[in-house]
Amino acid sequence: MLIVALDPLQKEDVINWSKEVVYGVRNLVTGFKIGMPLLIKVGISGCKKIFCDYSGLLIADLKLADIGDIMASVVRDLSEAGVNTVIAHAFVGRSGALDKLVGECEKLDVKVVLVVSMSHRGSEEFIDKHLSDFMELALSLNVWGVVAPATRLSVVRRVRELGGSRIKVLSPGIGAQGAQPGTAICAGADYEIVGRAITASSNPTAEALKVLSEQGRKVKECLGSH
Amino acid sequence: MLIVALDPLQKEDVINWSKEVVYGVRNLVTGFKIGMPLLIKVGISGCKKIFCDYSGLLIADLKLADIGDIMASVVRDLSEAGVNTVIAHAFVGRSGALDKLVGECEKLDVKVVLVVSMSHRGSEEFIDKHLSDFMELALSLNVWGVVAPATRLSVVRRVRELGGSRIKVLSPGIGAQGAQPGTAICAGADYEIVGRAITASSNPTAEALKVLSEQGRKVKECLGSH
Repeated sequence: MLIVALDPLQKEDVINWSKEVVYGVRNLVTGFKIGMPLLIKVGISGCKKIFCDYSGLLIADLKLADIGDIMASVVRDLSEAGVNTVIAHAFVGRSGALDKLVGECEKLDVKVVLVVSMSHRGSEEFIDKHLSDFMELALSLNVWGVVAPATRLSVVRRVRELGGSRIKVLSPGIGAQGAQPGTAICAGADYEIVGRAITASSNPTAEALKVLSEQGRKVKECLGSH
Repeated sequence: MLIVALDPLQKEDVINWSKEVVYGVRNLVTGFKIGMPLLIKVGISGCKKIFCDYSGLLIADLKLADIGDIMASVVRDLSEAGVNTVIAHAFVGRSGALDKLVGECEKLDVKVVLVVSMSHRGSEEFIDKHLSDFMELALSLNVWGVVAPATRLSVVRRVRELGGSRIKVLSPGIGAQGAQPGTAICAGADYEIVGRAITASSNPTAEALKVLSEQGRKVKECLGSH
């Protein structure tokens, strides 16, 4: 299960570049993840153009971390542009923040994914200290999924352990950031997120096929070993 | 010292509405704060149009909370649009996150402001528990300022106490969110941030003058009482 992150932006003409990548791999992958660099460059209207005829998973990874009213307002705009999944930080807490976001997303039929750990070292300074509380919060808010970094597989394992089987685990960091395809899924993730390895390739379709094949081989291996 | 937050967006034509507010109050206030709802609606190019001839404090309040490379990339784009101050979350930590953001901002001559507490109740669930660590981090990163909510004056006082006199304290929540003009400055803030009370008014200029006058009266009062 593969999700393509449309970053880093490779060309000045972001809309046409994104369209090319999307058309190149849309039939191979489960969905796409877009971030703040893309969104502030092309805005909601540009985003509509890129994904106007795409109906798969479209994740806005703005790592929302604001008060509830602001997050709800952002999600209303994103939803208009076809976004059907948003990523927010567990850190902002429930009351007056995530409770409002989740409420708004239910109305809009938008899935919520919470960041419970990140791939950079600084994640250990504050965020990782609250991992089990964040997972408890994610479960009690009944969100669709959580993010845990493929670059630290022990965290992915722990997240799956704490989250049980119902919650989806999305794992970025495959490819250019160092993790091998399949390793996060073997550690308990549902989806692996790949950016640069595919988006910076001169042939995204071929590269996506390669990642999928590596992922498949690895997953077969680890399933075999159980 | 007053900063106007350009939210919530009041009209469909966001660029012209923003320009009207900016022209109406620019000579009265220290600066403007723009948020994610505005930025994703009009993009970097729209932002340039609104602020093309403004040279005061222009704060992008995206509450950045990502890995360092992504935050640095966003700041490069914002800086092109005339933004000279960015707000990021202290909780993402230093290593691989805020260290890179601060480094990039130094190159671009952009000021960094860290969120160390927020106005919603959920801020107490995780964020507020780290208030003194966040202030220590802000001081050691030598950032320009921090955000503390005018709706909780005890937090503003504590932030000033921990931060000493060098660091700027920006305090949102004045007006529609309930705090009276001048109260945050009396508690130790440098700037009060007002949104709706001014931006939703049919006469932003008159409203800004009213807020400034109330602020002045209140500050005079509290200075007198010391």
